[in-house]
Amino acid sequence: MIKVGIIGATGYAGVEIVRLLQQHKDAEVVWYGSRSYIDKKYADVFANMFEIVDEKCLDDNIEELADKVDVIFTATPQGLCSSLVNEEILNKVKIIDLSADFRIKDVATYEKWYKIEHKSPEFIDEAVYGLCEINREKTKKARLIANPGCYTTCSILSIYPMVKEGLIDPKSIIIDAKSGTSGAGRGAKVPNLFCEVNENIKAYGVGTHRHTPEIEEQLGYAAGEEVLINFTPHLVPMQRGILVTAYANLKKEVTYEEVKAVYDKYYKKEQFIRVLENETPPETRWVEGSNYVDVSFKIDERTGRIIMMGALDNLIKGAAGQAVQNMNIIFGLPENEGLQQVPMFP
Amino acid sequence: MIKVGIIGATGYAGVEIVRLLQQHKDAEVVWYGSRSYIDKKYADVFANMFEIVDEKCLDDNIEELADKVDVIFTATPQGLCSSLVNEEILNKVKIIDLSADFRIKDVATYEKWYKIEHKSPEFIDEAVYGLCEINREKTKKARLIANPGCYTTCSILSIYPMVKEGLIDPKSIIIDAKSGTSGAGRGAKVPNLFCEVNENIKAYGVGTHRHTPEIEEQLGYAAGEEVLINFTPHLVPMQRGILVTAYANLKKEVTYEEVKAVYDKYYKKEQFIRVLENETPPETRWVEGSNYVDVSFKIDERTGRIIMMGALDNLIKGAAGQAVQNMNIIFGLPENEGLQQVPMFP
Amino acid sequence: MIKVGIIGATGYAGVEIVRLLQQHKDAEVVWYGSRSYIDKKYADVFANMFEIVDEKCLDDNIEELADKVDVIFTATPQGLCSSLVNEEILNKVKIIDLSADFRIKDVATYEKWYKIEHKSPEFIDEAVYGLCEINREKTKKARLIANPGCYTTCSILSIYPMVKEGLIDPKSIIIDAKSGTSGAGRGAKVPNLFCEVNENIKAYGVGTHRHTPEIEEQLGYAAGEEVLINFTPHLVPMQRGILVTAYANLKKEVTYEEVKAVYDKYYKKEQFIRVLENETPPETRWVEGSNYVDVSFKIDERTGRIIMMGALDNLIKGAAGQAVQNMNIIFGLPENEGLQQVPMFP
Amino acid sequence: MIKVGIIGATGYAGVEIVRLLQQHKDAEVVWYGSRSYIDKKYADVFANMFEIVDEKCLDDNIEELADKVDVIFTATPQGLCSSLVNEEILNKVKIIDLSADFRIKDVATYEKWYKIEHKSPEFIDEAVYGLCEINREKTKKARLIANPGCYTTCSILSIYPMVKEGLIDPKSIIIDAKSGTSGAGRGAKVPNLFCEVNENIKAYGVGTHRHTPEIEEQLGYAAGEEVLINFTPHLVPMQRGILVTAYANLKKEVTYEEVKAVYDKYYKKEQFIRVLENETPPETRWVEGSNYVDVSFKIDERTGRIIMMGALDNLIKGAAGQAVQNMNIIFGLPENEGLQQVPMFP
Repeated sequence: MIKVGIIGATGYAGVEIVRLLQQHKDAEVVWYGSRSYIDKKYADVFANMFEIVDEKCLDDNIEELADKVDVIFTATPQGLCSSLVNEEILNKVKIIDLSADFRIKDVATYEKWYKIEHKSPEFIDEAVYGLCEINREKTKKARLIANPGCYTTCSILSIYPMVKEGLIDPKSIIIDAKSGTSGAGRGAKVPNLFCEVNENIKAYGVGTHRHTPEIEEQLGYAAGEEVLINFTPHLVPMQRGILVTAYANLKKEVTYEEVKAVYDKYYKKEQFIRVLENETPPETRWVEGSNYVDVSFKIDERTGRIIMMGALDNLIKGAAGQAVQNMNIIFGLPENEGLQQVPMFP
Repeated sequence: MIKVGIIGATGYAGVEIVRLLQQHKDAEVVWYGSRSYIDKKYADVFANMFEIVDEKCLDDNIEELADKVDVIFTATPQGLCSSLVNEEILNKVKIIDLSADFRIKDVATYEKWYKIEHKSPEFIDEAVYGLCEINREKTKKARLIANPGCYTTCSILSIYPMVKEGLIDPKSIIIDAKSGTSGAGRGAKVPNLFCEVNENIKAYGVGTHRHTPEIEEQLGYAAGEEVLINFTPHLVPMQRGILVTAYANLKKEVTYEEVKAVYDKYYKKEQFIRVLENETPPETRWVEGSNYVDVSFKIDERTGRIIMMGALDNLIKGAAGQAVQNMNIIFGLPENEGLQQVPMFP
Repeated sequence: MIKVGIIGATGYAGVEIVRLLQQHKDAEVVWYGSRSYIDKKYADVFANMFEIVDEKCLDDNIEELADKVDVIFTATPQGLCSSLVNEEILNKVKIIDLSADFRIKDVATYEKWYKIEHKSPEFIDEAVYGLCEINREKTKKARLIANPGCYTTCSILSIYPMVKEGLIDPKSIIIDAKSGTSGAGRGAKVPNLFCEVNENIKAYGVGTHRHTPEIEEQLGYAAGEEVLINFTPHLVPMQRGILVTAYANLKKEVTYEEVKAVYDKYYKKEQFIRVLENETPPETRWVEGSNYVDVSFKIDERTGRIIMMGALDNLIKGAAGQAVQNMNIIFGLPENEGLQQVPMFP
Repeated sequence: MIKVGIIGATGYAGVEIVRLLQQHKDAEVVWYGSRSYIDKKYADVFANMFEIVDEKCLDDNIEELADKVDVIFTATPQGLCSSLVNEEILNKVKIIDLSADFRIKDVATYEKWYKIEHKSPEFIDEAVYGLCEINREKTKKARLIANPGCYTTCSILSIYPMVKEGLIDPKSIIIDAKSGTSGAGRGAKVPNLFCEVNENIKAYGVGTHRHTPEIEEQLGYAAGEEVLINFTPHLVPMQRGILVTAYANLKKEVTYEEVKAVYDKYYKKEQFIRVLENETPPETRWVEGSNYVDVSFKIDERTGRIIMMGALDNLIKGAAGQAVQNMNIIFGLPENEGLQQVPMFP
């Protein structure tokens, strides 16, 4: 039985890891780390866990934790994981970091977009970008996983086959993304109040959102050349879900069948990526509660562009689910263990 | 492997049975009955089932169905199940009816409140009222289960221990209930449109709702005398969830500890009923996606009343989950097989 | 032109006063008091006011304010207004207090339920409880108005005619109330976050909510005897709206027509109270955005009870609208000036 | 007093016209046309109108109507208005058509995108495209107004100054639009049910939405050359609101100040268009309940693109409000009569 510690167990991603691991046969959470709720019963913070989780919240002494567990999930704000990690820790325990600290290979880019100093740049090279379907082989041997962001996972997976096959102009990509509110976290802030979010839609971070360089870097590896994107996130009055609508110029005329074959080439074998049929646009409700990403596309002959679309549950494939998937890969478990939930509708 | 047929597989309760049984080790759906969608792929109606369910919708020829399956769930409007059932069918197959046809023992009461003629009153006596925690023993031997309504399950379980122990006046009970919109079904009706339901709360069926006699009858058995209630349902702008707030006059002064002991006496051993602590009111979000009922209470010394509260997911413990639980009891399986989902939050 | 100052202009009730007074012919806001946003442009806090309100937020120096305005609205937490008011101030300016400070005549009751010491009990007797339709005459001469709470307005107006006419047992009243989330205010608190409120319904303050004694006191005046109620508020995932479902034992048999005549007797002449016809239950959507209260009732012969129902917009008739209505009465203006909005649907 | 007839008074746009005209000093509705509800009291369909509108719904005999009213609003599906209009009617009465029948000048384009035959192409040339801020002068003399669509109004006004001034490449425009659910109308259809819309976001009509040619045509007039766009609408779980996020390649380097000056050049004098400051993205909540359009933009030097954004209330500036604004222009009334509502928040 794999012993799991969570630092940041009382955020929305944290409680989702807890929920998923309740249904995991080979792993159990033994450390519920939460600075804000030390000594409080976990089920008093999240009453859905009443009679399911009896433990109390603990602080996050990483040295002690590293001795007690096999893997640590850090579901914390940027800057914390990079300030905790060191060689000794990594020799004892696997770390799956849900923050952005190790996602971007170029330190200067990280520091520019996140506006903080990186505390342990020496581990950036080693860290594996944990987009499971693309970096599965590297993940198997990793000590440190940079678990991708929610917008990022959805954006990259929606676009990847087209970039990889060189079918679209990598400088023409525009990503218009929409997110449920749980992506904004559980912090007590006025903009996240019910009355501020409900009956509203807005763009935010236009031209400045920090997932931009992460998407550009990863798509750049696939393209073999520089990728430059516009990325515009929007806040939608719903709890979960990311929808990506991406636009790019086609380099040449292609048919529906040709593009479908390209998507199938990369994703047909993937159990968590569903390539929809007949130009059906993905919808967040059809993946909610599951680790699926649904992708689809539409060729617009009038403008010579392709619209690439994807949907996922930001707390599962966009955070906790992908983290568990990475854990399964690292420890040689079936990749879908604990992740077999069928999307819940309505 | 138990073979399952569903009549009414494309309603909200139907698709929830399908979802739950995907996670059931010993049962599988082999017949997706839906008059409205015959020959259409099930996953084209509910795209969450894409790459999960490959079957097409079938009509509902019950004779053919009875030969092919071990159990039939009828998730259909009132009147259908009672028009289909007969001795020959019941000798071949178990029937778990999610409609109201066999819930009320008195035919006249049924016909008065439902305003339709009962088509097979000869089976009413035999039918077991499938409130699992109360009628478990009878269910083990049943051929025909009257699966309780969503409001009913929540109301009865919230009040049952107090009535059973004779602590409240059975003529003083007032039940103010609130339901998510999936309880209204998937019919294309103006009152269920997003713009009609959202940003609104209303009472409906005041004094006339058909769950009233079902609650009165079942609580009457527990009380050993006539129970007369006010029942007022309300429609809430959310998808899932029932919340019951029930009021009754205490027959004598009781302490919190005494009442807590009464609830624990009946429910402590029940895995799907959670008696909350410290007067914490239940909330629908803490049970959503699970088969749990959370119950709680508050004694008001000022008025000599007790407020009894309960919350459940109307599509699970209030419909599909309880139906699967009944199936498990009938077939001697672990009662929680397929029902171990942890409530999903947020 | 009446000059208006608002203390607490950046809460939800505050901004609603601002909005209503934009459409008022004889009053204008000249002081936007907000401790949290001093020197910030009001339209930078509430962008709906961009190009409409150009002023900045000011602090709340009440002496200075009293010299500059004709009426002050205090839309602040309990305890502030009572700490500011004094004879000199009241000689200069009318005060309409939207907090609870002067609503309850019995200081001990106030201090018990609100758990704070009252700072100026000497003004309680003078303060007029500003339920316009009931205390209109007293309001005309008032210096200090205790503007009623949102739950309270809806509860009292739904029940008042029945109590006043002695048709129901005043010890049997049970009020089950449901509120939109704006009633919880604009404070940055986790329980009010979108992801905590959405897809949920819960009771809170069961047996302890502070509007209880306010309702009991006011209904007691109407009854001419002590009134004792159960009051249970619930939080609903919507922005605006209060729905009250109240239950009471009828003292004698009455017909629909008799009760309708009683409601009409008190409310027919009132432009902001609509007595619905044909037992139609009120719905919050039909009053949203307006100063209306819709009331209705249903007699249940089976149980000998009456169900009395009411709906209003908590920010208008339940707060800002009633405050403006009180201002109009005090200054001898048409009572509906600035309050002629038609309910907005959807 | 201008006498108004509405054909289609029981749809969402229809009831919004009724609501706005209740607050209009110089116009009154005298004909509530609704085929579905003939002889039913209008307030029985929309209970917000109880005690406000006493009339019954009538059929839509246009000859009779033309004799009785000064202006007819047709808030009906495509194809109806063009089947009713003729020279005799137009000589008697102004027609403001909220459907698409007369929006597109090229009949072939209309018939291709709407897939119906045009019934009165002879009036297309005469019809004025009623985007008030752009075609005000023509509107003053019009007999027949083609009231623009909701997506269209928001898209065109967000982009117009940039196209008009030749600052962006007219073949590079991508419009990603998001709409509240009232835009889908009040028809009883499964996809518009609460449980289907809530907790979901989806794109629809990708590459095929019928507002595409309308936007292209109108922007083409401004550009003086062909405009070719991608237009992708999305359905958002909210009642009202359109948000447009549009992308285009800048033809040359421009500064924030230069672009701001361009927007101000066209819109500064317009009372219903607010050009936001400091790159603030518009949000639908800040315009809800009003006739405002909020527009803003962000220059992205990295990609050489500009992101142009706009927000409006689809039922007001996107439908009923603009229709009333057109009526005011035609009859020489103050353009904002009946349209002075301040946006309502929350």
